[in-house]
Amino acid sequence: MKILVMNGPNLNLLGTREPSVYGDLNIEHLEHMVIRYGSSLGLNVDCMQSNSEGELIDCLHQAVNLYRGIILNAGAYSHYSYAIRDAISAIDIPVIEVHISNIYARESFRSTSVIAPVCIGQITGLGIEGYKLALDYLIKIDDNDI
Amino acid sequence: MKILVMNGPNLNLLGTREPSVYGDLNIEHLEHMVIRYGSSLGLNVDCMQSNSEGELIDCLHQAVNLYRGIILNAGAYSHYSYAIRDAISAIDIPVIEVHISNIYARESFRSTSVIAPVCIGQITGLGIEGYKLALDYLIKIDDNDI
Amino acid sequence: MKILVMNGPNLNLLGTREPSVYGDLNIEHLEHMVIRYGSSLGLNVDCMQSNSEGELIDCLHQAVNLYRGIILNAGAYSHYSYAIRDAISAIDIPVIEVHISNIYARESFRSTSVIAPVCIGQITGLGIEGYKLALDYLIKIDDNDI
Amino acid sequence: MKILVMNGPNLNLLGTREPSVYGDLNIEHLEHMVIRYGSSLGLNVDCMQSNSEGELIDCLHQAVNLYRGIILNAGAYSHYSYAIRDAISAIDIPVIEVHISNIYARESFRSTSVIAPVCIGQITGLGIEGYKLALDYLIKIDDNDI
Amino acid sequence: MKILVMNGPNLNLLGTREPSVYGDLNIEHLEHMVIRYGSSLGLNVDCMQSNSEGELIDCLHQAVNLYRGIILNAGAYSHYSYAIRDAISAIDIPVIEVHISNIYARESFRSTSVIAPVCIGQITGLGIEGYKLALDYLIKIDDNDI
Amino acid sequence: MKILVMNGPNLNLLGTREPSVYGDLNIEHLEHMVIRYGSSLGLNVDCMQSNSEGELIDCLHQAVNLYRGIILNAGAYSHYSYAIRDAISAIDIPVIEVHISNIYARESFRSTSVIAPVCIGQITGLGIEGYKLALDYLIKIDDNDI
Amino acid sequence: MKILVMNGPNLNLLGTREPSVYGDLNIEHLEHMVIRYGSSLGLNVDCMQSNSEGELIDCLHQAVNLYRGIILNAGAYSHYSYAIRDAISAIDIPVIEVHISNIYARESFRSTSVIAPVCIGQITGLGIEGYKLALDYLIKIDDNDI
Amino acid sequence: MKILVMNGPNLNLLGTREPSVYGDLNIEHLEHMVIRYGSSLGLNVDCMQSNSEGELIDCLHQAVNLYRGIILNAGAYSHYSYAIRDAISAIDIPVIEVHISNIYARESFRSTSVIAPVCIGQITGLGIEGYKLALDYLIKIDDNDI
Amino acid sequence: MKILVMNGPNLNLLGTREPSVYGDLNIEHLEHMVIRYGSSLGLNVDCMQSNSEGELIDCLHQAVNLYRGIILNAGAYSHYSYAIRDAISAIDIPVIEVHISNIYARESFRSTSVIAPVCIGQITGLGIEGYKLALDYLIKIDDNDI
Amino acid sequence: MKILVMNGPNLNLLGTREPSVYGDLNIEHLEHMVIRYGSSLGLNVDCMQSNSEGELIDCLHQAVNLYRGIILNAGAYSHYSYAIRDAISAIDIPVIEVHISNIYARESFRSTSVIAPVCIGQITGLGIEGYKLALDYLIKIDDNDI
Amino acid sequence: MKILVMNGPNLNLLGTREPSVYGDLNIEHLEHMVIRYGSSLGLNVDCMQSNSEGELIDCLHQAVNLYRGIILNAGAYSHYSYAIRDAISAIDIPVIEVHISNIYARESFRSTSVIAPVCIGQITGLGIEGYKLALDYLIKIDDNDI
Amino acid sequence: MKILVMNGPNLNLLGTREPSVYGDLNIEHLEHMVIRYGSSLGLNVDCMQSNSEGELIDCLHQAVNLYRGIILNAGAYSHYSYAIRDAISAIDIPVIEVHISNIYARESFRSTSVIAPVCIGQITGLGIEGYKLALDYLIKIDDNDI
Repeated sequence: MKILVMNGPNLNLLGTREPSVYGDLNIEHLEHMVIRYGSSLGLNVDCMQSNSEGELIDCLHQAVNLYRGIILNAGAYSHYSYAIRDAISAIDIPVIEVHISNIYARESFRSTSVIAPVCIGQITGLGIEGYKLALDYLIKIDDNDI
Repeated sequence: MKILVMNGPNLNLLGTREPSVYGDLNIEHLEHMVIRYGSSLGLNVDCMQSNSEGELIDCLHQAVNLYRGIILNAGAYSHYSYAIRDAISAIDIPVIEVHISNIYARESFRSTSVIAPVCIGQITGLGIEGYKLALDYLIKIDDNDI
Repeated sequence: MKILVMNGPNLNLLGTREPSVYGDLNIEHLEHMVIRYGSSLGLNVDCMQSNSEGELIDCLHQAVNLYRGIILNAGAYSHYSYAIRDAISAIDIPVIEVHISNIYARESFRSTSVIAPVCIGQITGLGIEGYKLALDYLIKIDDNDI
Repeated sequence: MKILVMNGPNLNLLGTREPSVYGDLNIEHLEHMVIRYGSSLGLNVDCMQSNSEGELIDCLHQAVNLYRGIILNAGAYSHYSYAIRDAISAIDIPVIEVHISNIYARESFRSTSVIAPVCIGQITGLGIEGYKLALDYLIKIDDNDI
Repeated sequence: MKILVMNGPNLNLLGTREPSVYGDLNIEHLEHMVIRYGSSLGLNVDCMQSNSEGELIDCLHQAVNLYRGIILNAGAYSHYSYAIRDAISAIDIPVIEVHISNIYARESFRSTSVIAPVCIGQITGLGIEGYKLALDYLIKIDDNDI
Repeated sequence: MKILVMNGPNLNLLGTREPSVYGDLNIEHLEHMVIRYGSSLGLNVDCMQSNSEGELIDCLHQAVNLYRGIILNAGAYSHYSYAIRDAISAIDIPVIEVHISNIYARESFRSTSVIAPVCIGQITGLGIEGYKLALDYLIKIDDNDI
Repeated sequence: MKILVMNGPNLNLLGTREPSVYGDLNIEHLEHMVIRYGSSLGLNVDCMQSNSEGELIDCLHQAVNLYRGIILNAGAYSHYSYAIRDAISAIDIPVIEVHISNIYARESFRSTSVIAPVCIGQITGLGIEGYKLALDYLIKIDDNDI
Repeated sequence: MKILVMNGPNLNLLGTREPSVYGDLNIEHLEHMVIRYGSSLGLNVDCMQSNSEGELIDCLHQAVNLYRGIILNAGAYSHYSYAIRDAISAIDIPVIEVHISNIYARESFRSTSVIAPVCIGQITGLGIEGYKLALDYLIKIDDNDI
Repeated sequence: MKILVMNGPNLNLLGTREPSVYGDLNIEHLEHMVIRYGSSLGLNVDCMQSNSEGELIDCLHQAVNLYRGIILNAGAYSHYSYAIRDAISAIDIPVIEVHISNIYARESFRSTSVIAPVCIGQITGLGIEGYKLALDYLIKIDDNDI
Repeated sequence: MKILVMNGPNLNLLGTREPSVYGDLNIEHLEHMVIRYGSSLGLNVDCMQSNSEGELIDCLHQAVNLYRGIILNAGAYSHYSYAIRDAISAIDIPVIEVHISNIYARESFRSTSVIAPVCIGQITGLGIEGYKLALDYLIKIDDNDI
Repeated sequence: MKILVMNGPNLNLLGTREPSVYGDLNIEHLEHMVIRYGSSLGLNVDCMQSNSEGELIDCLHQAVNLYRGIILNAGAYSHYSYAIRDAISAIDIPVIEVHISNIYARESFRSTSVIAPVCIGQITGLGIEGYKLALDYLIKIDDNDI
Repeated sequence: MKILVMNGPNLNLLGTREPSVYGDLNIEHLEHMVIRYGSSLGLNVDCMQSNSEGELIDCLHQAVNLYRGIILNAGAYSHYSYAIRDAISAIDIPVIEVHISNIYARESFRSTSVIAPVCIGQITGLGIEGYKLALDYLIKIDDNDI
């Protein structure tokens, strides 16, 4: 069972950007950690990161028939990219939205995720653990053949 | 390590209320499942449910010095109870907000949680698995001595 | 056929509170009048009143399998209690919303009832006659086996 | 005692328009039913229907000194016709607003009735029974010499 | 020089409707007074009144080439009739908006006139004198060949 | 196959009203052109124009069983006539909304069409060609038996 | 009978400021014209102009017992000076609001006058004739002993 | 003369909750201080605290005929409890709203008190001195027989 | 210890302006009463009043190093003067906002005080007693060396 | 005469994405159909599709001097891409906005097109016929040398 | 070439007011620095400061024919003084708006400058250097004879 | 000292796009002018332009450790790109926002820059001089070792 982990704009700066908010782990460590954790669950995890809205959309499209689930941290695009929202709607794969920080405790514009209504669920504020919990969930629903 | 799981208004009807949205597991099964899962992680889980805003506030107050973490599904109170919000702020225990359904994919009033800004994080739309993931998280941050 | 009449916050002060708005009949008279009128229609009417949102929710839950219809004057809770709204949605009993005064002719906050969308209908501004008309309606739809 | 029943735009299509919302009784049946019911109460009921805002206003004006009460289903004009609102204010006859469907459970624009503040009350969502209940009310307040 | 005075919905009830707001002069007196006053200024004044939005529009259209100025009290249509607004824009005649009462001191919906932006000016709150002042103005600008 | 072309308020002034916005073709020319174009497609086109909201509603009702499609330019009523919207919903004929000018490039109130959600589509800003394109569309969907 | 004409901020630049909007008459000419016109009506007219909100308030206060009416063009203060509004409310003199240009046909902030609700009426868009019409009105209501 | 001091949700945590905002005096000390201060003024002060909206309403009702004044710190309920607002309106006792912190200098939701319009006044931001000042006021108006 | 009492626009009309709202005490009496009351507490109270926003700002600036506290009733400037707000922020003296009437029970624009967030607290609706209570508070915090 | 047809984000999934909304024709078929139809009109049609906002902008820029008209379905970018709007404004080519579905009958965010004000017109809800109608229009205005 | 530098409310406290925001240079130093810098560019710079809206307007008026450019830091008046806005529009001198702090990074009310639309440009957040840059600009456009 | 000048979407069309708004200098001239001016100040200026949001973000990231300051004209992305905002926050380089035209004097959507709060300042409306002034500023703060 293959899972795709997608990180959006500025997450490539993880570890250097506002460490008090996002922690000091960098993107390579994050991806390595997620892959290893997935592996421990018997999941085959691929990771990608892009700052480009168009590439994120392309990537969602290409995931069709390849992945059983997607974990998406769309960064700031979450707050206005109706194009990414449409891409999620257009594919038949469960997508879980993850945010490292508690987006509801920050600037008001971060309180609205335009992609949330088309994801199956959201995990916010639980740091990089959020990615692991999303993997936990995806394996469970797969077991239940959902 | 003790954890408190709190369910708010109408969650006592779980299993009978809109099963297509909330599933067909009733509240006793949910609580039993959560306690057993906590137990498997070495956690001592207590559960409570109330339809009363005042009782939920009282319960949050009484949790001080007794619990290391709280998992709170405040139901519809999430959308307007600034009193529960203040209770969460007033106590020194990490609170994770859980919603069984994806509140961002339903009526617009459900898109705003007034308690989210004072919780450490939120898990929504992942069904009753959300409670288990919250337990997973609480045990991990405790291990890290956060 | 049993019907439950529920009165919410401050309706226990009926007759003493702003008589120019609510009339000078007190709550006992109101309940007595409604029970007697129901009786004349062959209906078995029970009445309750509470100032507590939680108790109103509990009462709605307990009505399941006991009552064929509910007449609910939720007072000011009508304007913000999404928890009562969820309780109405959660039970399988027709609920008619009644307000003694014309809520659309008063302060602007009274113009929105958050419970109206999940009730089957609303009678407002027709004084205590509103309760009787609601009984008339409930007996008629029952005759029609709705 | 004479009562006027006024039906506004598109109610002439009753029975053919969205039967799942409005039922399958046509306007002639509705009017006949209301007249007969009024008659059984000793009321002399006249009915009119118009799709024209101006005609509805004219009709309200002409009702002065002829009718003791008016039952008005202004259809979609309810949501924006301040001119009809002014006509109701301008005449000295109690007007009850009736809607067949529950306007609070449909599109958001239907949740605001600009005529409600100048009517004495409103009955919504109780189907064509709403007209009969309004007749019940009018005869009662007349008995009480209000 | 011919002037048209147009009165919109419910102004036919002048004198009977809310005399404390609109005074006790009826529409015939108003029209007679305006015609006589116009006559004293050497103006030929025609008056019309209609409760129908469509008729008011028709009348504005027909005024082309017949009248040098129009005095329009569109009543409640002032607050939402973009169709009347377009009619005013479409004809090449100066239109002065008149309101008997001070629309800015009443319900909030009366504070917006959607026709004001396409009239040349507005006189409000000066009672029936407003019509005379509008005549005074129209004769003056005509003298100035505007 | 019969098609009805309906023009709403102020379109009778076409050619005289703001020619820079609407062109200099008058309503007779427009109707003649549309009829002739329809004829060239084998369509039997009837045209009507009214400044009255009520007449437009009446006309929509009467179209039932007579026309296979309606092309509606409701003029300014498009922006607030929920009554016309309901009339469109109430009949079982495809309605295409047409506007001669680009309503999205003008005053902000023109940016909202309350009838758009119940029409099958909208053509705006393409001048009087819009009517012809709507005819093109109606004949095509009829060929496809939609 | 004494009347006070007050001109607010930037009206001292009349004639030089945006002549296409305000005309090319300067403030001295305006004041001279108004005084002379008042004189022709037997009115004793005083004029003042100030760019200072405080001075305008002082002036309104000092008018008590000296003037029978005030004509006030408060310029841009009309749109936000609740302090001037309170000054108008606090004195027992009828105040007529005058604007030279049609404030409803310009920038949106000019569409709201916060002083309008406490003036007896408003004349807008009729150029400097507006001041004369206001004088006409004041003498008429004084004759009627209002 | 008896006075009732009512403290709402979370005020039982006073002294432990955000001391930088609310000070480090606990609720028992506060109540003791207020009672003693009242006593020094010759006032008989009773205190109550509840986290329950319903209990606060019940308590307001029971105060009738027992107390000459009420000092109410409704905590977060101040911002949304229209039910408490109605309870205050329903009783014939002067109620003074007190807040320990300056609610206008905190989160935006705290800037609106829905109960303020029906209280006689409000004291905010003056710490626990606010309760004493409210007592000072109540004794003074009582001396003046208001 | 010196205290400055500042009264803003229109408060010079106290006693003559809307006595039902503001009482019948004039400004000299108010100032005399406040000075005498301050004197009884051992406070040296100076009073000023101005209708000019600029003078109120100048006065706040000049208070630096002269006064230990300021009691400010900024009248209607409270609702929009960000310049006065900045002046309060800029000086290092505690400022208490006082309003004689209950600003939350009047027109909606009075419900927002833009200066409240930078004052230490607010007393509203307690009439002229509010000034005395503010003095009571200032002497107490001074004793506590705050 | 060359025409460019541009399809934006997610339109490459046409035929697989929500066929009930968008139909089951895929993008290649759509493009083939449009090219062939253009050819039948004597038009030389080029097609492009991109999920990238930047590429769509680049493409609009490169169209200058190459194409006589552009048909643009910007997908979800229509609702927020002010950058694409600016690109349309910046080039001197008529652009027609096309949407396959009726964007006014779907989620509320789809009701606003930020590019509509700078296009010459819009065709929505007419399925893939919309592209052909746009071609019809472009050839006609070219004939008229607009 | 003469330039006028105008500083509005509270800028006289520069250096003492919130130094972390505004720096510790006082107004005399600022003015001296600006004059000297202007002198080095061959510009004759005059400076004024006032806390009074009226004086700032007077000063803008008096600048006509005296100055070739104005640098205006209107302080908090920038956010609501439509009267100053009108004064800027009324004179024929280029005005550059300067703010020492980044007004877009502070309280939300500071994000809107009502004078910005009538200035030629704005420099914000660049500290007192902003004044110098504005001088640089004014000399350059003068060289270009704009 | 190296400075990066970044131009966003559509600025590559400078000189051809709306010359009345943006001037007739093209992008090569602009960049050449800025580089030469920087050179005259001893600054090493690099320029880039992109229509792609993602590329602008990538570029901001790559600037870390290479540039001492960034001058950013993000074009229309300024009004909605929270992703670019986050990129600016994430890097430790002072960024100055520049707009050639006065964005506050154009369409309302241009009045909000979502990147302004995280830039150190903004220069708008001063044409291409704005870039030079930004260079002036950057060299000055560098001299001051900020």
